[in-house]
Amino acid sequence: MMTVRNRRKMAGIPRGVISRLPVYYRYLSGLSQAHEKISSAELGKALNMTAAQIRSDLSYFGSFGLHGYGYRVDELRQRIAEILGLDREYRLVLIGAGNLGRALASYQNFRRRGFVISAIFDSDPQIIGEELGGVKIRSIDGLEKYLKSNPCDIAVICTPRDVSQGICDRLVAAGVKAIWNFSPIHLQVPDDVVVEHIHLTDSLLHLSFHLRHRTESNQS
Amino acid sequence: MMTVRNRRKMAGIPRGVISRLPVYYRYLSGLSQAHEKISSAELGKALNMTAAQIRSDLSYFGSFGLHGYGYRVDELRQRIAEILGLDREYRLVLIGAGNLGRALASYQNFRRRGFVISAIFDSDPQIIGEELGGVKIRSIDGLEKYLKSNPCDIAVICTPRDVSQGICDRLVAAGVKAIWNFSPIHLQVPDDVVVEHIHLTDSLLHLSFHLRHRTESNQS
Repeated sequence: MMTVRNRRKMAGIPRGVISRLPVYYRYLSGLSQAHEKISSAELGKALNMTAAQIRSDLSYFGSFGLHGYGYRVDELRQRIAEILGLDREYRLVLIGAGNLGRALASYQNFRRRGFVISAIFDSDPQIIGEELGGVKIRSIDGLEKYLKSNPCDIAVICTPRDVSQGICDRLVAAGVKAIWNFSPIHLQVPDDVVVEHIHLTDSLLHLSFHLRHRTESNQS
Repeated sequence: MMTVRNRRKMAGIPRGVISRLPVYYRYLSGLSQAHEKISSAELGKALNMTAAQIRSDLSYFGSFGLHGYGYRVDELRQRIAEILGLDREYRLVLIGAGNLGRALASYQNFRRRGFVISAIFDSDPQIIGEELGGVKIRSIDGLEKYLKSNPCDIAVICTPRDVSQGICDRLVAAGVKAIWNFSPIHLQVPDDVVVEHIHLTDSLLHLSFHLRHRTESNQS
């Protein structure tokens, strides 16, 4: 267990270290039960980092590495899970049951980590009442009423770009503090609301940029 | 049109600027036709950046801003599209027709930007032969043969984690130079292959981290 003193320190963790925590967690979770310990060199090799970087990152979370031995995989994974807040369940609502929303609703990996979609909303009367992964699609008109009696931790926005900011504003007004945004716009939110953007097209454009540049290098 | 000299300069663009190009492109593409010009201040406000940052970024692509006027939206969008390599079509193959693969295959936004899925592969005999968004699911056994006669630009990996590296190795051996990876592992590739990772769960874990930390701040 982390002590209160350790918890308070969380604010002092550099952003870069925080951004790598899920990477460590994912890698450690993929190791077999038989994998009892791991060295910073092994972790570094697997994650394209130096052993020194690994040791520096992990040093922010206490001194649980053993000199000349490495880290106990179970202990390290458990500690990172606590820091990431994975020792509890999160309730999600999903807005927009188009292709992407449907895929996310039926993706099992999230539930396994404790992220449970409790409600799905859409504006299309044709699909309201349908079930996705055991969860009924509700009318977006009932969003506020639902959230009042069923507070959620995270809202997943999968709506078309022209309605996303409006939906986001309604969610924020209803008290939602974390938003997972799949719509292709930059959402404006108050300072106390955190947004994670997944811009699929941006990532494709990085690939096309590199292909374009690569071809040029070969030609020059 | 960009000159050859301008093209050669691409290599000198800082990574940060490159990573923001899709953001600019996405924002400019969302503006209505009536929006003829835009100032660096307006762009900055919409994208949470300073006007100076915007001007500095865009200066890498030539001097097409007009002092005291701003940028011509059409011209700026066109220039960024060229730099991003969007003046041609890209052929994609998708490996793994599970929930996520299916969603990506039917997502219309990619095709609109010139990213066309030409083949889908899976190992499950139950779904081989099915059609997704007009494209037949083929057996993964035929991957190399297909790529030999139908070279692709980008491979999309949506397979389970334990087979992803193997699939990636086969794609690389078959000459694929760009990989869009949705499987939850870090893929190892040679230096001349570019990988964009979309780790959905990592992004959820950032939200849980912030919710955890937020709660602590309120309590302390």
